[in-house]
Amino acid sequence: MLRIFHKRHPPVGARPGTLMVDENRIPPRVAMIRVSADLVEESQVTDVEQLVGVADDRRTTWIDVQGLGDEPMLRRIGELFAIHPLALEDLVNAPQRPKAEAYADQLLLITRMARFEPGSGLDVEQVGVLIGPTWVLTFQEHHGDVLDPVRKRLREGKGPIRTAGPSYLAYALVDTIIDGYYPVIERISERLERLETRVIEQPTPRTLETLNRLKMLLVLLRRGLWPQRDALTQLIKEPSELVTDQVRIYLRDTYDHCAQLVDVIDSQRELVNGLMNTYLSVIGNRTNEVMKVLTIMASIFIPLTFVAGVYGMNFEHMPELHGRWSYPVVLALMALIAGILLVYFRRNGWLGGHGHVDDEDDDDLGSER
Amino acid sequence: MLRIFHKRHPPVGARPGTLMVDENRIPPRVAMIRVSADLVEESQVTDVEQLVGVADDRRTTWIDVQGLGDEPMLRRIGELFAIHPLALEDLVNAPQRPKAEAYADQLLLITRMARFEPGSGLDVEQVGVLIGPTWVLTFQEHHGDVLDPVRKRLREGKGPIRTAGPSYLAYALVDTIIDGYYPVIERISERLERLETRVIEQPTPRTLETLNRLKMLLVLLRRGLWPQRDALTQLIKEPSELVTDQVRIYLRDTYDHCAQLVDVIDSQRELVNGLMNTYLSVIGNRTNEVMKVLTIMASIFIPLTFVAGVYGMNFEHMPELHGRWSYPVVLALMALIAGILLVYFRRNGWLGGHGHVDDEDDDDLGSER
Amino acid sequence: MLRIFHKRHPPVGARPGTLMVDENRIPPRVAMIRVSADLVEESQVTDVEQLVGVADDRRTTWIDVQGLGDEPMLRRIGELFAIHPLALEDLVNAPQRPKAEAYADQLLLITRMARFEPGSGLDVEQVGVLIGPTWVLTFQEHHGDVLDPVRKRLREGKGPIRTAGPSYLAYALVDTIIDGYYPVIERISERLERLETRVIEQPTPRTLETLNRLKMLLVLLRRGLWPQRDALTQLIKEPSELVTDQVRIYLRDTYDHCAQLVDVIDSQRELVNGLMNTYLSVIGNRTNEVMKVLTIMASIFIPLTFVAGVYGMNFEHMPELHGRWSYPVVLALMALIAGILLVYFRRNGWLGGHGHVDDEDDDDLGSER
Amino acid sequence: MLRIFHKRHPPVGARPGTLMVDENRIPPRVAMIRVSADLVEESQVTDVEQLVGVADDRRTTWIDVQGLGDEPMLRRIGELFAIHPLALEDLVNAPQRPKAEAYADQLLLITRMARFEPGSGLDVEQVGVLIGPTWVLTFQEHHGDVLDPVRKRLREGKGPIRTAGPSYLAYALVDTIIDGYYPVIERISERLERLETRVIEQPTPRTLETLNRLKMLLVLLRRGLWPQRDALTQLIKEPSELVTDQVRIYLRDTYDHCAQLVDVIDSQRELVNGLMNTYLSVIGNRTNEVMKVLTIMASIFIPLTFVAGVYGMNFEHMPELHGRWSYPVVLALMALIAGILLVYFRRNGWLGGHGHVDDEDDDDLGSER
Amino acid sequence: MLRIFHKRHPPVGARPGTLMVDENRIPPRVAMIRVSADLVEESQVTDVEQLVGVADDRRTTWIDVQGLGDEPMLRRIGELFAIHPLALEDLVNAPQRPKAEAYADQLLLITRMARFEPGSGLDVEQVGVLIGPTWVLTFQEHHGDVLDPVRKRLREGKGPIRTAGPSYLAYALVDTIIDGYYPVIERISERLERLETRVIEQPTPRTLETLNRLKMLLVLLRRGLWPQRDALTQLIKEPSELVTDQVRIYLRDTYDHCAQLVDVIDSQRELVNGLMNTYLSVIGNRTNEVMKVLTIMASIFIPLTFVAGVYGMNFEHMPELHGRWSYPVVLALMALIAGILLVYFRRNGWLGGHGHVDDEDDDDLGSER
Repeated sequence: MLRIFHKRHPPVGARPGTLMVDENRIPPRVAMIRVSADLVEESQVTDVEQLVGVADDRRTTWIDVQGLGDEPMLRRIGELFAIHPLALEDLVNAPQRPKAEAYADQLLLITRMARFEPGSGLDVEQVGVLIGPTWVLTFQEHHGDVLDPVRKRLREGKGPIRTAGPSYLAYALVDTIIDGYYPVIERISERLERLETRVIEQPTPRTLETLNRLKMLLVLLRRGLWPQRDALTQLIKEPSELVTDQVRIYLRDTYDHCAQLVDVIDSQRELVNGLMNTYLSVIGNRTNEVMKVLTIMASIFIPLTFVAGVYGMNFEHMPELHGRWSYPVVLALMALIAGILLVYFRRNGWLGGHGHVDDEDDDDLGSER
Repeated sequence: MLRIFHKRHPPVGARPGTLMVDENRIPPRVAMIRVSADLVEESQVTDVEQLVGVADDRRTTWIDVQGLGDEPMLRRIGELFAIHPLALEDLVNAPQRPKAEAYADQLLLITRMARFEPGSGLDVEQVGVLIGPTWVLTFQEHHGDVLDPVRKRLREGKGPIRTAGPSYLAYALVDTIIDGYYPVIERISERLERLETRVIEQPTPRTLETLNRLKMLLVLLRRGLWPQRDALTQLIKEPSELVTDQVRIYLRDTYDHCAQLVDVIDSQRELVNGLMNTYLSVIGNRTNEVMKVLTIMASIFIPLTFVAGVYGMNFEHMPELHGRWSYPVVLALMALIAGILLVYFRRNGWLGGHGHVDDEDDDDLGSER
Repeated sequence: MLRIFHKRHPPVGARPGTLMVDENRIPPRVAMIRVSADLVEESQVTDVEQLVGVADDRRTTWIDVQGLGDEPMLRRIGELFAIHPLALEDLVNAPQRPKAEAYADQLLLITRMARFEPGSGLDVEQVGVLIGPTWVLTFQEHHGDVLDPVRKRLREGKGPIRTAGPSYLAYALVDTIIDGYYPVIERISERLERLETRVIEQPTPRTLETLNRLKMLLVLLRRGLWPQRDALTQLIKEPSELVTDQVRIYLRDTYDHCAQLVDVIDSQRELVNGLMNTYLSVIGNRTNEVMKVLTIMASIFIPLTFVAGVYGMNFEHMPELHGRWSYPVVLALMALIAGILLVYFRRNGWLGGHGHVDDEDDDDLGSER
Repeated sequence: MLRIFHKRHPPVGARPGTLMVDENRIPPRVAMIRVSADLVEESQVTDVEQLVGVADDRRTTWIDVQGLGDEPMLRRIGELFAIHPLALEDLVNAPQRPKAEAYADQLLLITRMARFEPGSGLDVEQVGVLIGPTWVLTFQEHHGDVLDPVRKRLREGKGPIRTAGPSYLAYALVDTIIDGYYPVIERISERLERLETRVIEQPTPRTLETLNRLKMLLVLLRRGLWPQRDALTQLIKEPSELVTDQVRIYLRDTYDHCAQLVDVIDSQRELVNGLMNTYLSVIGNRTNEVMKVLTIMASIFIPLTFVAGVYGMNFEHMPELHGRWSYPVVLALMALIAGILLVYFRRNGWLGGHGHVDDEDDDDLGSER
Repeated sequence: MLRIFHKRHPPVGARPGTLMVDENRIPPRVAMIRVSADLVEESQVTDVEQLVGVADDRRTTWIDVQGLGDEPMLRRIGELFAIHPLALEDLVNAPQRPKAEAYADQLLLITRMARFEPGSGLDVEQVGVLIGPTWVLTFQEHHGDVLDPVRKRLREGKGPIRTAGPSYLAYALVDTIIDGYYPVIERISERLERLETRVIEQPTPRTLETLNRLKMLLVLLRRGLWPQRDALTQLIKEPSELVTDQVRIYLRDTYDHCAQLVDVIDSQRELVNGLMNTYLSVIGNRTNEVMKVLTIMASIFIPLTFVAGVYGMNFEHMPELHGRWSYPVVLALMALIAGILLVYFRRNGWLGGHGHVDDEDDDDLGSER
């Protein structure tokens, strides 16, 4: 079953700012990339104290935390970057609803990332992005992400990514996360194509189950994307100095992609609904076919059996029994009855196929280049 | 049957401010907690007159009324805290629609609390919160609540809960009430997982009934949560001095949780709908299976019985009857007929299983870490 | 059949202000209540000219017109109270859509009242309320209403109802009308509880018909209540001096009740939909049960009959027929076949009961205190 | 089949202002009515040049064009009244979406008129209304309309229709067109009542087809009415001097009727959906009945036939065959088997009627006065 | 299967402004039309350098790029016309969501064009329109479009198309694209009419598949049209000097057509839903018919066979067997049983037709002129 809801949430009535760090959490791996116009410096942060002073450095810095399983480290990061307790809670106690929020001189953006991992299926996890004056902090639930292209661009230094400041870097990250939905959607699309064939040709209750699961998956993806639209709008309109005008234009583009993805997901849900209807209709049709066979067999042979039964009766006085041609005549009668019934069934279209008429008619509407 | 609607409401045409206190109401238990920076004072209020003067005390005070079955006491509390008659009506004549309202120097917040009580199922009850200059009043319908963590925080005095004034205390209460929905949702989630198995493997009409009941339950929970979102928004925007700016930020957080819960409930409703469809399809499939067995049995044996019937006829002149090998030939003919029909049924996929093809295909889409 | 739409409307193209007074209208009964702080004066108005001068009296006056079947009288009332032709049209040509409108120094409120009348079912009728500087006019379609509690309060003089002016009186009337929906909703709720049992235990097509009718009833009630919400909002915000600030607060309360009723009706509609699904599923299950019985009977006895048929054939050379133990052996064979089939059916769960497993599991989710 | 969409539209890429006047268009009939306070002058306009100077006349003039099949005449009218090319296009290239638009000193209102014509069913056509300083132009697609009552009011001169200027005249026309939907709705309502009986008592696939068609009809009517609401709102708020304040109040009334009609249509759609469900359930129930008869007949006689078959076997050694009372004993056994099965079926409610229990219960909820 | 989603999108994490030009792209054909009041100059641009200087020419110029398969050329065009990288990305990386955006002195409009191409079905492609101070650039995905009428109008020079500047030219293009949906909708309409007949008379699972495909097609068209409405609104309200007031009025007209198309598509979707319901009901009815035949045949002959079986038993003492008239009496008895059952079935309406009653009743509601 698809998990609709992850079970991690603060204990009821906990103080605001309580971090949910339990044994199921993955231990954090922290990576830092510092860039200036012509230099890149990458390092793994093994000791959180290495981050002292980073917040005040003038270079644009990206600190990426993957795995949220070490409360003291997370708290220390919170102190070093002066993160508001509620912001830290939102970053750590994933999953939160995607949203954008402004705190003094920081901007918090909660996004959701979706990707397929070979072997373990779809992974939907929260990525929290915190934009500071010279740095960007990201908090991910699991190891592994879709952000390698951004790392590559930072290393190669093409485009304004090194020089346009932290808000541009944050935009690049969010844009990459949103674009990461495209391959997921495509994979679902391919799956739907295969399911379409399956539904027509070989439907089983498992097929319906798979359709239901795909629908829930689409619901989950939409639930992740829809509030991101609002978060992006809010970010675009946020009167904070942390977001440059250039970045606002770029975010508008990301917003458009987000809206397009929601559109596509909605269409896919319509398609799933259609396939479910087809499934039910195909099943109904099968029952119909089964019934027809039963009806034809029973309707032909039951009367014949009756006729045979009549002449199997043991009455003393049954003149027909003694006739020379009685037996062949009765056999012929039986054949006649069977023939009449067959004609009747053929007329009602219960025998033989139909459906070829439709073929040529379809071609011009169905396909799309 | 799930009660959609509690039957307690004022008699039609009653004066505004009429309190509905009937014999079904639970007698009130009143508890008072007074806190200052370093002191906590807890007491059970057995006589309402103990509350005289409390309204003017400078310490932050929480008076918690559980059970609404004593009209004179409730009226006296209304007088002592100068509660507007309409506010008192909303607090006492539960259930009201969740809402926030400002009265002169008081703020009224009607919330709904959900919790599971061992042995008696889900309890959804109104909790009315009235915020005054130095005190918070809560009115609950039943004894027992989810607010013990707040009491504990008051006693332990960690965080700003003792010193940040009544609006922070009220926030802590509301936040705890909202967070109290998470375990409920989880329990429903677990139930849905079990039901999913049941629907596929052993569906009975009771299963559908249970699904219907869960759906109504989700409708009820959503009906309680949705207006609380609006109430929280209103509280955040309320230009009253009773709510400090710090609390407004915290309430935004509570609002987010509320929105997330509504999202989850909506997804669960989709899931219930999906399970209902699966249920119907599984039932339909079963009918189909039953039909197939009938059709196979009848289609094979009815023609054979006919053949037997033919040679049971008593005609005098039936040359076949006298042949040496007639009987074994007829038996062989019967076996042939049965064989042909079996081949036909196998070809149509009515015999034997299918569905294994799907298995490997599913794994990569269905699961989510 | 439930009437969705009353057939009374002005002839197409009639002049605005045309009153629809036909022979089906009930002749009006006019009652007048005049109150001052310590006096109440009630009278039946038999001649409309008794109302001359009432509009200018300083005492708060309520003129209640029940039945709209006398055009000259209605027109004369229109003249005496200087009612705008369009307002008079709205008051008389019921049913109009509930709404609030301001005319110079008058406020028009069109509401809809619902009540059960013993013996004749649900009565939904328009009540038009016109608020003037010192008087309130109400126009009802039929005799009888839910407003007796207001009359009693006027007579007894408790609360501010005698002294707070016409807008407070109008509020009391509207509040009573809205509260009058609660007993209706409760009655539907009880009906639904009985229907729930019926659907599970003894569903007939009539049951579905009743569910459909209840759904239409809920649609009608919602259609009446929904625009009243808007009308109340408009009244609360109307910058007219006719509505005092005190009354605006009270109207907010009435608005809340209206919203709550709409919520409850929506939940009931969900419940009706759920019951409809259960109904269809129960019917489907029954077909399934019928099919099973047929399949079991036919599948067991058809092969046996075939065996009997074989040994009823009249071939000369059938060695089995002459064996000493042939007959008992064949009987035993038949018993064996029947036994195998019974085991098969029992394994597939077609024989005997199931469903007890579910019982204990349900209790903790289903109930609500 | 109901036409969802009339096929008349300008060729793709045509210049704006292109008029679609093809051979299917009905040749225009133009009527002119000029009124002043005490005079009415009616005339048929056979030559469009008769309209020269009319635009500058001070009397209120209504020129009514029925049929749009003469392009030069329509163009000439456009010139004479200085109509904006886009306005003329909207008036002529029907159907357009209902809307209101302001052009310099003219106001364009596109409405849709619905009426039943004896013999040819429902006619939904566009009526374009153009309001000028002293005149009103109406363009109708077909001959015949619902506007005769307005013509009569102009002739009789009651009310302000002659003297209140062109905007009042336009209001009278629009109001009459909207009111013209009431008889249509009523007729559909009557039809639905008859269909309700039919669905319960004698449903055929044709019944479902009719329900589908009615639903599409309601969709079409709603599609015509919904944008007219918006158009009326726009007209009410339009800051043009062409609409007097008095007319704005009257238009508010027309708006209310329009909203009420949309409400009623929505309720009717709900009713049609309900009837469709009932239809499917009745059909399902019938299949159920058919199955029951089959099951009862087969389940009773197949075992009996088997017993008869057993004693029809030709074994030499069947001791029962020789007993004196064997035959009557076997007959009695058969009767016993049949009896047991009948009792079983009766217990399961498959024999005999039920449903009378429901009767009394219904009466008090179903009816509405 | 209908493609819901084209698979072309930038690689995840690509720099903004990355153009997606892969081998599947069609090589571009560029055409240029320059017009002044009395001159037209058309040319095919084979070398992109021919466009140098065009951006500064005072004549209104339309450069039309069909096919997006040459990245250097597209980049060079971007340079020559100073196109913002994000705008160029939107123009090239089709499909984008339809939208309007303002860039400094350029206006970007992303539209979607739909047309039927003989032989290859429906083609839905993006047309990007970029409006500059003196020029209009269009980027199409494929060769071939619906814009020939605009080219003809440019050549013929009727109307303001040559002289009203680039915004008028762009309006003409967009208007033509929107109008191009009408023939598509009509074709779907015709298809639906044929499908309606098919559903009633000869439904196969393929019919449902076709209905599903049509529904998805309508979803796709709606998905293309709906955001174009918003884009047009934005363009109308855009405070850019590039759009003249005259053009704003014309765009309002285009907006209306767009809204009408969405309305029609919504109605068609309702119709498709209705046809799906009818399909299911017709299939259900067929099963019903099949069941009836089986039930009639089985119910009549099974009891008769039983009777024959009884008298085929070999008991020694069966007095009936020896009677002179026993055989004819039994035959008569059988006929009687059959007759009684036939009467029973006829009474229940299982034999013979019905449905003619409905005919006359329908005519007056169903048709629309």
